[in-house]
Amino acid sequence: MELNSLRALFVHELKDVYSAEKQITQALPKMIKGADNPELASALEDHLRATEGQIERLDRIFKSLGESSRSNKKCHGMEGLLEEGGELLKEKGEPEVLDAGIIAAAQKVEHYEIATYGTLITWAGMLGEEQAQGLLEETLVEEKEADQLLSQIAQSAVNAEAMAQPAR
Amino acid sequence: MELNSLRALFVHELKDVYSAEKQITQALPKMIKGADNPELASALEDHLRATEGQIERLDRIFKSLGESSRSNKKCHGMEGLLEEGGELLKEKGEPEVLDAGIIAAAQKVEHYEIATYGTLITWAGMLGEEQAQGLLEETLVEEKEADQLLSQIAQSAVNAEAMAQPAR
Repeated sequence: MELNSLRALFVHELKDVYSAEKQITQALPKMIKGADNPELASALEDHLRATEGQIERLDRIFKSLGESSRSNKKCHGMEGLLEEGGELLKEKGEPEVLDAGIIAAAQKVEHYEIATYGTLITWAGMLGEEQAQGLLEETLVEEKEADQLLSQIAQSAVNAEAMAQPAR
Repeated sequence: MELNSLRALFVHELKDVYSAEKQITQALPKMIKGADNPELASALEDHLRATEGQIERLDRIFKSLGESSRSNKKCHGMEGLLEEGGELLKEKGEPEVLDAGIIAAAQKVEHYEIATYGTLITWAGMLGEEQAQGLLEETLVEEKEADQLLSQIAQSAVNAEAMAQPAR
């Protein structure tokens, strides 16, 4: 597909974020399993369900555009971010400290999505794709809320627990 | 290095962002060369200079902590983001449309840094590392300004130029 119009770029970017969201659903179970703090594990579980809903929204957007969600390109941006998160889970250390690292890694993922959906919403508006724009806005609200919830869990519990390490 | 304290995690994350910033200085010249809009090219050039200043700040932080900036780990998150940007530059299409894509890719990079420096500032504060905290705050302001400038260039010129394609 040649990028000879804003619409072509819009579809290109939608396919990229579709790949990104699919990768997130595969990576989140490992992060949930790796989380020590129950509040953090629960927030990541909620986000897994939200991500599945966001993929369904993207399916509806592709349908409304008359485009296929299929692509032979993997989103390498998300691949790198999730590789970074996966490396952290393999590190040795105190569980409370690793939790603080898991939050940091998850917030990088959230910010990738905040940047991407922000761009997609602007383009959908310019292209007059109102249905797509509305659905993308719903997802952006969820991503921002997820980011804020992670900050809140860090500030209310995880950072202080990490700070108290090593306990012995 | 075992992640057995918040300080160890802080140094681990500083080394990660040091690798990320170094990679950005290597990738930006190609993005500048690939940009068609002069205002976009100029903003990316300014950001290259800002990134060099941010690396110097990180050098000062490592010195103040008595830690080495050296690491055998490459930041894979940034590697993936820059790979994504590099792929876009190889796509065929109208220069005005590719410019809109370059801005989207650059804003993903900015958001990675906004998330990372936000986390580092919180941890520096908890650890009582005031000098580091102040320097990291200066960088975060620059990253947010760079992100806003890219949005402004998209909204004032590039998106409309992309929307006008194909011109023939």
